[in-house]
Amino acid sequence: MASRSAPPADVLVPPTGTQPASSSRLGASGRDVLLDAARELMIASGSSDVSLHAIARQAGVTAPLVKYYFGSKEGLLTALVEADTGKSLGQLQQLIELDISAAEKLKLHVTGIIRTYARHPYLNGLLNRLVRESGSERSDRIKANFVEPLIKAQRVIIEAGVAAGEFRPIDPNHAYFLIVGACQYLFATRVPFGNLMGGAPSDDAFVRSYTAAALDFIQRGLGVDPDRS
Amino acid sequence: MASRSAPPADVLVPPTGTQPASSSRLGASGRDVLLDAARELMIASGSSDVSLHAIARQAGVTAPLVKYYFGSKEGLLTALVEADTGKSLGQLQQLIELDISAAEKLKLHVTGIIRTYARHPYLNGLLNRLVRESGSERSDRIKANFVEPLIKAQRVIIEAGVAAGEFRPIDPNHAYFLIVGACQYLFATRVPFGNLMGGAPSDDAFVRSYTAAALDFIQRGLGVDPDRS
Repeated sequence: MASRSAPPADVLVPPTGTQPASSSRLGASGRDVLLDAARELMIASGSSDVSLHAIARQAGVTAPLVKYYFGSKEGLLTALVEADTGKSLGQLQQLIELDISAAEKLKLHVTGIIRTYARHPYLNGLLNRLVRESGSERSDRIKANFVEPLIKAQRVIIEAGVAAGEFRPIDPNHAYFLIVGACQYLFATRVPFGNLMGGAPSDDAFVRSYTAAALDFIQRGLGVDPDRS
Repeated sequence: MASRSAPPADVLVPPTGTQPASSSRLGASGRDVLLDAARELMIASGSSDVSLHAIARQAGVTAPLVKYYFGSKEGLLTALVEADTGKSLGQLQQLIELDISAAEKLKLHVTGIIRTYARHPYLNGLLNRLVRESGSERSDRIKANFVEPLIKAQRVIIEAGVAAGEFRPIDPNHAYFLIVGACQYLFATRVPFGNLMGGAPSDDAFVRSYTAAALDFIQRGLGVDPDRS
């Protein structure tokens, strides 16, 4: 493994003749430049399937920089998931400790999930890919750090709401797949299917109105009394 | 392109020393053997990302057979989508012409979507991949043949239900992503996340109970009066 005491001197210099989208951010740290480049590629392609070389090219740097900072592509992708979910998972932890009703927590939780997927539409596919393609130990660590906290926090909200009579009785494991599925599908398919429905999925106004539509759908699906949410 | 008058004589002979899962079906047509091999790989890995060589190996045949029958991997994957969705799309067309309530159509429709994804959990990822990776003309054909019929049929059901006062008012485009998202997410993530929740997603009983849970959730989400469905 390369020494980590200092980055190679030339790695932050973009190749001449190219004008990558990230070049204006080369003042930021090398790590952030590379994470942003990976995000841009995944958002544009609608897929988490990006190569290390494409990331380096998009960032306007040479490929060894990726290995210098992250060890491997897998290391970069794990850091990306960490950066993209860290704040939301922290807020979710604070949310479940608030002294408000379960229905109110559900509302903030669903809005947060959709905001996260709207910003990082590649996130679900990327997590699936990392869990599938990593060795079992690393795979378990990814699940423990990024997936289980969401499952556990949502379970607390659902169980409290059912116990309080705010939600109808429902298996929290079923609720997890129903809620997250309804929240994430638009964002998982928006790039390939953007020109269907007269182009609706490509329209940012559609995405904005989707948040309210999904919240209404999920609240009703859980039997929330509209006057209590 | 190879002549299509007859398959190469040796292609259906499995290599010695291997015992692929499909070998017992070598009596079936070569096309079906290859489609089944692709299905098995995608179901086991939880991903639509399979190589032409892996498909040939799984089928216990040589790689040229795939090109002989399907022209390319893309040709095989398109044939797979056609085989997996043809019957369901035909039934959906018959369903919307039935003289039953929109709520009853919704129930049959949702049950049909979940049955399709339970049998072919790779289907959504595969369609996204084909649309993303194909040339624009082929990509448009895939959308027109396999995605638009579902969107259109579901729109007819939703609009009829809203007009009859059976469903609450909802944008059919929003409804599409909410309903399909809730139906497909378990199946899209079941392999990588199977050992979460104490192993619930890996349990076939969980999958069976999910159909009823999703139907209830979606009916409530659309404001269906439980006595009318």
